[in-house]
Parts: sequence; structure tokens; C-alpha cells
Amino acid sequence: MYEFILTETHDQIFEIVLNRPDKRNAMNIQMVEEIGKAIDDAERAFIQGEARVLFIRAEGRVFSSGIDLTSFLEDENKYGENWRDNLFPTTADLQSVMNKIEDCSLPTFCLMHGYCLGLGMELALACDFRIIAERTKLALPESRLGMIPDVGGTTRLLRLVGPSRAKEIIMTGGNIDVVDAERWGIVNYVVPKDDLIPKAEALAKDIMLSAPLAVSYTKRTINDMLDDRGNLKIEAWAQAQLIRTEDFYNGVNAMINKTYPVEWKGK
Amino acid sequence: MYEFILTETHDQIFEIVLNRPDKRNAMNIQMVEEIGKAIDDAERAFIQGEARVLFIRAEGRVFSSGIDLTSFLEDENKYGENWRDNLFPTTADLQSVMNKIEDCSLPTFCLMHGYCLGLGMELALACDFRIIAERTKLALPESRLGMIPDVGGTTRLLRLVGPSRAKEIIMTGGNIDVVDAERWGIVNYVVPKDDLIPKAEALAKDIMLSAPLAVSYTKRTINDMLDDRGNLKIEAWAQAQLIRTEDFYNGVNAMINKTYPVEWKGK
Amino acid sequence: MYEFILTETHDQIFEIVLNRPDKRNAMNIQMVEEIGKAIDDAERAFIQGEARVLFIRAEGRVFSSGIDLTSFLEDENKYGENWRDNLFPTTADLQSVMNKIEDCSLPTFCLMHGYCLGLGMELALACDFRIIAERTKLALPESRLGMIPDVGGTTRLLRLVGPSRAKEIIMTGGNIDVVDAERWGIVNYVVPKDDLIPKAEALAKDIMLSAPLAVSYTKRTINDMLDDRGNLKIEAWAQAQLIRTEDFYNGVNAMINKTYPVEWKGK
Amino acid sequence: MYEFILTETHDQIFEIVLNRPDKRNAMNIQMVEEIGKAIDDAERAFIQGEARVLFIRAEGRVFSSGIDLTSFLEDENKYGENWRDNLFPTTADLQSVMNKIEDCSLPTFCLMHGYCLGLGMELALACDFRIIAERTKLALPESRLGMIPDVGGTTRLLRLVGPSRAKEIIMTGGNIDVVDAERWGIVNYVVPKDDLIPKAEALAKDIMLSAPLAVSYTKRTINDMLDDRGNLKIEAWAQAQLIRTEDFYNGVNAMINKTYPVEWKGK
Amino acid sequence: MYEFILTETHDQIFEIVLNRPDKRNAMNIQMVEEIGKAIDDAERAFIQGEARVLFIRAEGRVFSSGIDLTSFLEDENKYGENWRDNLFPTTADLQSVMNKIEDCSLPTFCLMHGYCLGLGMELALACDFRIIAERTKLALPESRLGMIPDVGGTTRLLRLVGPSRAKEIIMTGGNIDVVDAERWGIVNYVVPKDDLIPKAEALAKDIMLSAPLAVSYTKRTINDMLDDRGNLKIEAWAQAQLIRTEDFYNGVNAMINKTYPVEWKGK
Amino acid sequence: MYEFILTETHDQIFEIVLNRPDKRNAMNIQMVEEIGKAIDDAERAFIQGEARVLFIRAEGRVFSSGIDLTSFLEDENKYGENWRDNLFPTTADLQSVMNKIEDCSLPTFCLMHGYCLGLGMELALACDFRIIAERTKLALPESRLGMIPDVGGTTRLLRLVGPSRAKEIIMTGGNIDVVDAERWGIVNYVVPKDDLIPKAEALAKDIMLSAPLAVSYTKRTINDMLDDRGNLKIEAWAQAQLIRTEDFYNGVNAMINKTYPVEWKGK
Repeated sequence: MYEFILTETHDQIFEIVLNRPDKRNAMNIQMVEEIGKAIDDAERAFIQGEARVLFIRAEGRVFSSGIDLTSFLEDENKYGENWRDNLFPTTADLQSVMNKIEDCSLPTFCLMHGYCLGLGMELALACDFRIIAERTKLALPESRLGMIPDVGGTTRLLRLVGPSRAKEIIMTGGNIDVVDAERWGIVNYVVPKDDLIPKAEALAKDIMLSAPLAVSYTKRTINDMLDDRGNLKIEAWAQAQLIRTEDFYNGVNAMINKTYPVEWKGK
Repeated sequence: MYEFILTETHDQIFEIVLNRPDKRNAMNIQMVEEIGKAIDDAERAFIQGEARVLFIRAEGRVFSSGIDLTSFLEDENKYGENWRDNLFPTTADLQSVMNKIEDCSLPTFCLMHGYCLGLGMELALACDFRIIAERTKLALPESRLGMIPDVGGTTRLLRLVGPSRAKEIIMTGGNIDVVDAERWGIVNYVVPKDDLIPKAEALAKDIMLSAPLAVSYTKRTINDMLDDRGNLKIEAWAQAQLIRTEDFYNGVNAMINKTYPVEWKGK
Repeated sequence: MYEFILTETHDQIFEIVLNRPDKRNAMNIQMVEEIGKAIDDAERAFIQGEARVLFIRAEGRVFSSGIDLTSFLEDENKYGENWRDNLFPTTADLQSVMNKIEDCSLPTFCLMHGYCLGLGMELALACDFRIIAERTKLALPESRLGMIPDVGGTTRLLRLVGPSRAKEIIMTGGNIDVVDAERWGIVNYVVPKDDLIPKAEALAKDIMLSAPLAVSYTKRTINDMLDDRGNLKIEAWAQAQLIRTEDFYNGVNAMINKTYPVEWKGK
Repeated sequence: MYEFILTETHDQIFEIVLNRPDKRNAMNIQMVEEIGKAIDDAERAFIQGEARVLFIRAEGRVFSSGIDLTSFLEDENKYGENWRDNLFPTTADLQSVMNKIEDCSLPTFCLMHGYCLGLGMELALACDFRIIAERTKLALPESRLGMIPDVGGTTRLLRLVGPSRAKEIIMTGGNIDVVDAERWGIVNYVVPKDDLIPKAEALAKDIMLSAPLAVSYTKRTINDMLDDRGNLKIEAWAQAQLIRTEDFYNGVNAMINKTYPVEWKGK
Repeated sequence: MYEFILTETHDQIFEIVLNRPDKRNAMNIQMVEEIGKAIDDAERAFIQGEARVLFIRAEGRVFSSGIDLTSFLEDENKYGENWRDNLFPTTADLQSVMNKIEDCSLPTFCLMHGYCLGLGMELALACDFRIIAERTKLALPESRLGMIPDVGGTTRLLRLVGPSRAKEIIMTGGNIDVVDAERWGIVNYVVPKDDLIPKAEALAKDIMLSAPLAVSYTKRTINDMLDDRGNLKIEAWAQAQLIRTEDFYNGVNAMINKTYPVEWKGK
Repeated sequence: MYEFILTETHDQIFEIVLNRPDKRNAMNIQMVEEIGKAIDDAERAFIQGEARVLFIRAEGRVFSSGIDLTSFLEDENKYGENWRDNLFPTTADLQSVMNKIEDCSLPTFCLMHGYCLGLGMELALACDFRIIAERTKLALPESRLGMIPDVGGTTRLLRLVGPSRAKEIIMTGGNIDVVDAERWGIVNYVVPKDDLIPKAEALAKDIMLSAPLAVSYTKRTINDMLDDRGNLKIEAWAQAQLIRTEDFYNGVNAMINKTYPVEWKGK
């Protein structure tokens, strides 16, 4: 039914599984849209009483290496060849799927292993709970390409760790130590890779002892208190400018051609 | 290409025309989704330099009589038969299209005549400018059915007229005098019906004297300052409760069977 | 049952009537507390289905001349003789009654005639709708005493008329023309004195055509969108300083002894 | 003077002591109201220079087991037998006492031992500082009854630990490890039970080295910066729906009859 | 003492007079900085009890024709030749003077005649009260140059007239009818040119009947309630992008060379 | 060029060095203003591509002992002898320099050793990153003088550590353990004194691997999300009252004459 993801329900757990292992689960626009549609399926399962929690995890050796650069071609198809001159609709499209995950009626768990980079980490941050395997590479490396994390990553990291640590993580783009990640509140649990699913299932089971609507309304209540949708607009303003810089162009080329470090021009 | 709307571009004006005149342009889910897709078309036209402003108007004798009650059946298809037990995803779907209109890069004009009721008025409120024909019936009658305007109507009316007038309009559900509507700031201009399009075109022409990005960024700047996306969540909380009351059930039946007034039970 | 107010229910209208005509309905602490308790009665009547709207009006020649200066003695009884050194609890007590009116489940109407000054006008501003008799003296004269309106008046006037007009009204302390009051949105209707109750009843009747919970939730939804409880704290900071100035002392004396104008010292 | 609490002042410390040890300090409406009145006493003592800090602690083996289920009968007395059809006034009553604690002019310390559950923990969260004895059971178990913590617990926990940890704590309803509680910022200090009062007194003494108004204004300044009164309204919307579900009814019965686990119906 | 302005105090009125009549009071950076310093003088006069209100008015035939395009050269001096690549510090400099006017302790009056355009109107919007002579040309024409009003004009116009009218005024850049300006709340009074000073003095006199600190705190209280400093940042994001477009370059040239209309490129 | 600071650029690092070692880098008004001007220099260097990060550090044995009490005399020069009667302009002057640091386009590092007290710590909190030498005395001791930290310290500490820990730190005025400071998120790194500069340079180097505008926009994006400028106004309200108390006068005298502890009067 889906090309880049799988979905499955068992034990009242609705699972979305990233399933593009040959590309290290790089996320293209279609994969993102498929995740959005799977959320509708999960809502239906919730209303029917068939599912109570949602897991997002990945097949293969890594959770996700982040955005698939070919996505940019898809944007061109949708908004025309000058799409970079007015990035706002593109940003809004991606953000709206992340918002849909955040707003969905079921508590959401992200289970990460291997790599969880860029857009992959932004997806994780849109979930309620994050459980991570030891030694997973966790990073928001966008600034190394001349961009910022604009699919909610900046907004959602900020609210978990505050401004100073969020700036350090995003400005350097470097790997986050998973122990620090737990200590600072970015992830809920760090476990050996084999315990990833068992740990998530144990927490899911604890949550299922509580009443379904009370759980769902706890989620909505806290989300609505955050009221940081406005912040997503600030991400959009910043990115709309960065996407037009020479440095972005050079950064992407350096990544494709592996010609690091880049000689930045500051424009 | 679309079933319930038409789109057309001329003189750098992208037009979305409600086109279901036999049903007085009653809005069903599909029509709302078609409007959302047409916004993508308008964005593409904007980026390509083909369109600079967006008109939303209607064919036939009235702009719109509001939501088509058969929409509820479509919701059941999407979210299952118990959809009223957890209205949040349904509300979010409708709100997201209105948000897309509000966020689009082109200045948007709504041209109203005949009736502009309920969801039709919520659509109008999501536009930047409202031009209305004399003697148009303008109202948010949801409370007469046991509901509130939850597709952004409460949020957007509030920011135009303040709390006291917004409460009066929504609590009574009665027709708003169009002269008051202009005086209070709900509409920009009241004109004879034949002047509806000329007036809109004249204002569009004035706007086109300004630079396209300056116009678009004026819109984004002001929208982002409003930062009232959180308010849409409050609308959702209220409606999720109301949709489950007996009074809602009775209110809808009274409307269908024209058996007014309703004996409300307050539950 | 109450000393300074009357309550009565008829036609699903719960009425609170200020009833201290010999003192021009000057409001002392006890009257304010009685109003707060009457709101509990109104809530009970609403839940029982006996009342659907709430009127606040007054017996005698005027609605209210504002705060009764002897209230200050009552504050001393409650918080000790140095109460002016830390005004915050006193302000909070008065504000909490106004908040209770604003938050109550029924739509509230304030019917004003004669005078409506100071705390009387702050009471009116805490209601959903304001209907006023022609030639009523409407003012917030606190600045003439060296104070600001700190029982929500500044917050609530601001949201109706915006900053520039709110500053003019409060800084001058002068009478507001009732026609301007309607034009700017401070009051909903200006009517001849004899039409005060009929006009309110007609509007109440219109509201009762709508479902009770839809009406109540419209009110809550809009109130919760305003989210200006934080502003009441700013009023409290300002007043806590002003109450300790010499000018306040001189202003009160001038009012008692009618020795205007005051030679202000600015401290 | 009070039935369910004691108050006492020594060394400029105003103490409120929960004193219903035979019921494990279960909190009924009257106890909550008595705490509110004791805050007025504390304000008076502060203004008179007799008290500078406020302790809330408990007699007996536990701090508090949470709300006394018989409170619900008291609500019925106040608002009529259909009180659950419109929970808003009930919620507002309880929240207003917690707000009064939070807003009071003295720094407030909560000293916890044994159990601190549900409404007891919400009381603790309304204080400025929390000191807890080792091995104290700390939890917000409301979701196990089909409710959320709606007396400010959700709002105040969120601002201490952020959204992800707050969701985990409230959705599971399980016991919080006190070491994690300190590490995450829920409590200021974990100490052996016998050190509870000495630790609090030592911190109080440190605070008393600072000027009284500077201390009080530090508290007000930070509280006013939080500006999350609006969030209490979101708690109210959620709870008003949950209180009418079958699951709530079943959850309460299961608690009374100790027939766990509950078969939740999701409605 | 100042080159482009005059200051004078009489009758407790501190006056700042724009005084570059040969350039139609076009505002360069130095004039803006001089206004900022004059505010310090006014504060000193207020603290000393010598002044109670502040007037800003202009010598010559017009209030101000807006920004002096040569200002851009001054920016280059301060921030280097690439200053347009990072406009943020430049915007912040100009905004900070307007904020200083808005925050000053005295009530501020702007008296306008002739023209009041662009930066001149932004100055007016930073004042508490606006009194305007009949037939004054009032406009924010920035969009005709490819810019937005980014020195607070967008933020402050929005809060006076709401989003729909603010968008119309800024997007078209056209002249605002002064009668509409009064009706919508942009200006407090429209008077014949000769009545400009008398009307302002009469209102000032009314304000001086009130206590100086009560007046000053009314201003601070309302300003602090607005809390829209964040909006100034959104203006900065938008302008930082627009200043680098070709359309801006073409728009400025068209203004200098009077070669209207411009063929906009949308980039 | 500057009297109390030095500036220097090397390796794309712009350094501001506090240089008043004989006074333990006590900060007077002139030093603060010089820092503000140096920020303009840094902006110019950034736009020219000469500098990418900004360090603030100190010569001598300590970072800074806080405000120089003789500053108060300078305030008198600027605003007249009654300056304490209306502290708002004075507070705004100091806050505006801290805001300028916070808003500057380069990432800012504060390197602390020895003491970092009061205004010195407020300066540190206005930077993006804080690196501190082991055994540095870090405190906000204002409450021991009868004041609060009103130059942004309260606002910025709150957002790093939340309300409970911020209250404890400010109310006691005591030294903060640097290990706790790191654990709670007040500082990024605690290092041996000799590693202070190397550690900062290593982090700077990591940041310079990312594109300059992406780094700068990450900073702006996160700062704009915080939107807590309104909180600085609350600090101002509190301090304006405290500066006029007897306790403030006594607190300052006790500090000058080292006659601790103070007998506070609470007024």
C-alpha cells in the first residue's frame, strides 16, 4: 500500500516502519507524505479501539540518514523551477506532516538506532517519546550545508533543552552524546540496541493501564500549552533566506562530492 | 479538473470560483479539499510570475450556504463510524485548508453575494480582504445547531471585531448588517452587486503597483504577528464536546426538518 | 440574603441588582463579595436549567458611582494596618471577583444608567455585553486620584478599543461620549433609558434561540483566546507603587473635601 | 480555628500543617478552602513583619494521598446534582486556591514524606520550593481513573520538566523516582526524612539574609514571567470532557473496589 | 545643540520639532539619533517636574516626507560596504529609537500636517496620540519601493486597525483618507490645520489634571500589555530579505528618477 | 580607543576584554556603554567577513565583581538628582546594552574565572555560551542589597533553569556550585582555569565548520522564539519599587561598610 514505509498493528500498537534500507532510510517527499497518510490510518484505528499507541521505527541498519537530496527535484515539480525564490510553501508542506504527527490522538514513540540525522531527528522530535539505542549517531547537521533545521527541529529542540544547548547543537551540527541527550531531556531512555523494542513496549504497556481518552487528552493538553506554532514561522523566514545563498549551493555540492571542509563566503 | 470549483487566471489574478450552484454552493469535504489543491496551483503561478493576487468568488445566486450536512458521512468514511467520539482529526483537516488559504503567498480577496453563511463565512474570514454586495446575508448560525464555528471562524472574527461583538454575532447566530460589518471591520467594502468584481479588480490593481515580494511579505509579516494558531485548538476543544450533545443532534434534525424553534436540553 | 444586592430569576434571566441607592450604589468590599457569591448561585441555576443569561443592573438613579472609599478600612481589617505597603493581595481579591464574572458560564449583560464610574465601569467591562442609557456618565476617573484602574479596567478597555484610545480615556479620566463608546466598541448599544431592559431582553431572547452549551462554549472559547490574565498582574505592579505616593493621599483628600484641582507633586 | 489543618508561626516561618492523619491527609473541599484562608493569614503576618516564609507540611505518616473522593458530594451541594455536566466552575474553585498559594507574597516551601499523590502533588507544585524525604511515593495517578491533573498539576509540571517527561509522568500515572525528580528539577532537595525540617529551615534562613521585599518581588517577577494562567483553562476543557465519560465512572469504581486493572472503553 | 531638530519646554510641555524644512523634513540617521537624545532630555525634565507631556511636531510645510535616501550611505559608514547583506543591526538601530519614544515616561503627542509619509508615519505610530490636520497626506508607501515598513510601522499599525485594514494600507501604499484614519483608530483627532496646536494643548491640559505618575504608569501599563516587541523581529526578517532583491534596487531608482510605474520582477 | 575594555580580532574571533583589573572589573556605566559600542565594531567585522564569533573575557584575577556602586552617581548626572523616583529610563539604558549583545549577529562566548557576580553574571547570561573555570564564584547577590537582578538576569536565568531553581538562586543570593551550574544548564562547560581559552577556541572552531549565515540565523531564530522582551519590563516594575525602599538604602550601606547582616525593615 505504501512504497517507502510499512504499517502494522499488534497488541494495540500501531507501527510505522521506515522501509527504504538501501538508501539508509533517506527521506524523500513521498516518504514524508506516506507517513502523513499513515497517521490518518492510526487515527481511524484509535477511534475504532484497535490501537492505543503509535511507534515509529526503521528497518535496516539505521533509523534515517535525513533528507534525500533528490527531494529538491520533487519540490520543483510541485512549485515550478523557481521554487527556491519563495520557499515558504515547501517548508509549510513538510512542517504540516510533522505537526500532524505531533497532534495525533495516540501517544507516539520514536525508536532510533544507527543514525538519526537531520530530518530524521526532526521526525523524532515531533514524537512524544524518544528511545534510542546506545552508540546511535544523533545530530542536526544542517548548518554544515548552510541551512537550519526548519521542519520543526529548531522549535522542538529548544523546548526540550533551552536556548544555550540548542544553539550549541545546531550551530556545530556535531554528534550529540546519547548520555548527554538523556541527561538534558532530548531522549527519554538510552538502551542497548536489542532492548529498543522491549523498552518501548514496556512503557506502552504502562500507558495502557491508564484510560485511553485520559492519555490522549494529556497529550493534547500539554501540546496546546506549548503553543509554539508561531515558532515554525520563524524557522521558515530564516530558511527562505538561506536557501538562496551561495553557501547553501556550495554546501550541498561539498556534501555530494565529499569535498570538506567548505570555504564559506558568508553570503 | 475539479468537480466543485473552477480556477482561472487572467490579468495576473488567479480565481477560485465555487461552482455548485444547484446546492447554493454548500461546501462538502471534497470542495474544501479542492480549494486546498487550488492554492497549490496559485502558489505555482505566483512563483512563475503568472499571478499576483487570488480571488475567491462564487457562481450562481449565492456565495455559499455553508457546510453541506452530508459532509458528516464523508468524515465517517475517513475516520470510522465513531468519528464523533474524537472530533479532533476532523476539525484539524478542515482547519488546515483554511490555514493554507491564510498562509498562501498571494493576497486573497473574497467576493460575497447572496448568502455567506457558516463555513462560507469562515472561508471569507481566512482571506485577506472581504468585499461584499449590498443586502448579502452574512451570518455564523452554528449556535442554532448546537455548535460553534470551529473552522477558524471564532478565532478570525475575534481578531477583527474584539470579544464583545464577536460574542454577540456568534451567540445569536443572526444576520450581520453589512453596514455594521464594514464599520466594525469585518469587511473592507460594501458595494452594489454589480460592482463586486470591478471593486476587487481596482484594489488588486492598486496592490500590483507595489513590488510582488513586498506585498507577499507584508502579508506574511502581519499573519505571523497574529500568532493565533493556538486559538484554533481552543475551538477544537469546544466543538469536540458539543458534537456529542443531544442538543447538536436535535439542532441538526430541526434544520433538516425545518422544525424551529428547538427545545434545547442543555446537554 | 444579601445586604447590598438583590438577585432574582425570571424568564431564564438571572438578575443581580445593585441595591444601595442611598450611596449611589458605591461599591464596598462586601458588595463586591456578594456579587461573587451571586455568581455561584447563577452557575447553579444554569446547571439546573433554570437560567440562561445573567443581567447586572442597578436600582436607583445611577448604576454606580464607583468604589466606596470606606472600603480601604475594610482592607485594613483583613490585611493589617500596613496593607498599603504590599497592595498585591488586596488587588488580587478584587480582581478575582471580576474574573469570576468574566468566567461564568452564562452570557452576562450590564445595563447602565445615570453614572457608571470607576469600579462600576470595571464591573461593566467584565461582562460580555454592555447596554447603556443615553446621557449616562461613563468614566474611569482613577488618575484624578493618583491611581490607575487596577481591577481589570485597563486590561479590558485595552482589548476593546486598542492602546491609543484606552490611554486617552484613562489618562484624562474624563467622561466618554456614549456615542463614541458605541462607535469604538466599548458598549454594544445606546438606548433611551426606558428601553434599557427591553433592549437587553430582546438580545437575551435572540441568544436563547441558540443551544445553551453552544452559547456558553462560545463565551469560554473567546475568553480563553484573550489570555490576558497576565495583564492583570501588570495593573497590580503599577497600583502597588501608586498607592504609596503622596499624590494618591492628596488626590483622595481632594475628592473627599472637593478641593480641586490638586497640586500634584509627582511622587 | 480550622478543622483539617493547623497553622503556627515561629522564627518568622508561617506553617500550614495538613492535619487529617486518620484519612492519610486526603484533601476534601473544606481542607482546600481552609488552606486558602490560611494564606490570607500568612499575608497579614507578612505585612505585619511577623512571617517571612511559608511552610506547607503534614502531620502523620504521609503528606497526602490526594483528593478525597467524597469531595464530589460537596460539589453536588454547591452546584446541583448535574454538576458534572458543566465542570468549569468546580475546576475554577480548586484552581483558584492553588493560584492563591502560588501568588502569595511569601516564598513557599512544601515538605513531603510518605505519599504525595494527585491533588497532594498539585499542591506541592504550586509552591516555590519542594523538599522531599527519601523513598516518598510521588505520583500523579489521575489517568488511572480516567482523568487528568486539572488543578494546575499539568501546567506546573510542564514548566519544570518540559513536555516529554511531563507526558510520561502523567500518562503512566506511575511513581516518580525521587532521584530523577531532583535531577529533572521537580524537587529542589531529596533528604533523609529526619532532615526534612532542618533542610527547609536552613534554606529559609539563607533567604532571610536577603531583604523581604526583594525576596517577595523576586517571586512575583518570576511568577508573572511564566504567564501560564491560560494553560489552566486548557486543563479545564480536557477535564470537563473526561468527567462525563464511562471510563471515569469505571475508573473511580475500580479505585473504590480495588478491582484493577480496568477494562477501558475509550469513551 | 541639535542640527535637525529643535527642543523647547513651555507650560510643562516638552516639544521636539523636526527642523529640516528645506528637505521637507526628510529623516536621516542623524535626525533620528537626535530625536533619541532629546527623549533623554525629556526624561530628565519629567523627573525634575519641569515637563509632563511631550509633543513631536514639525516646522515648515510638511511634517515629514519620510526617510532620506542618503541615510543608506550613513549605514555603509557604520557597518561597512556590505551592510545590505546583513540588515539586522541597521534595522535594530532605527527600531531602538522608536522604542525609546514609545517607552518614554511622558505621554507623547504627534502633530501632523502636510505630508506624513513612511518613516514619518512610523514615528507618529510610536507616539501615544496622533492629531492630524485636515487634508494631510498620510501613507506608508514602502511597498512601492519593494520594502515593508520595518521601523515598527507594521507592528504598530496592526495593533490599531487589525490585520485586514493594515494589509490594505501597507500593500497598496496609497494615501489614507484622514476621516477613515480617525474612524478606524489610526489618529485620535482630525482638525483644521490652525487648530492642531490648540487641540493638542487642550488634551494635554486635560491630562495634566491627573496625577503625573498615574498618567505615566497608565502609559507603561498599557504598553507592557501590548508585548509586541517580538513582532519587530518579524519585520526585520522580512526586510533583510527584501533589501537584497532586484526589485528594491529598481524601486529606489524609479523613485529617484521618477520613472513610474516600475516593471517588477518578483525577485 | 576604549578606557575600560580592550578589543582585538584574531583567527576570526572578535574579543572584548574587560580591563579594569584594579577594581576587579567592577562595571560602571561607561564600561557598559563601551561594550555596546564594541558590539557595533563586531558587527562591522562580521559583515566584512573578518570575524565569525565573539568572546567576552576579562583581564586580571576575576571576571567581574559586578556593578560599580559609583554608577549611581553617573545616573544622577544623566537623569537628575531625583533619578531614583522614576528608575525606568535607567533600567532601560542598561538592559538595552545587554539586548544588543544578545541580538548581535555573531555567536557570543563568555569566559569566566575568579568571580562572576551580579551585573557580571547578567552579562554572561546575555551571551550564547558560558564556559567557566573551576572554583569560580558565581552568584546573583542583588537581594542581599534589597534589589533584584533587573538587567535581564532574572529573565535569562529563568529560561535556562525554570522557576524553582531561579527563585532559589536569586532569593538566597548565594554562590552557585559550578557543577550544579553545568548540570542545570546555566553554563555549557566547567574547565580548569588554564583550559578556559582553549576550550572556547575548540568550540568556536567547531562552529566555524558551519556556514556563517546558517550559524547567525540559528542564533536569531532561537532568540526570536524566546520572545521574552516583555519579561524585562516586569523586572523594571519590581526594581523601580525596590530602589525607593529603606532596605535598599540600608543594604547598600551595609555593603559599603561591611556591617552584615542587615536588619531588614520590609519597607
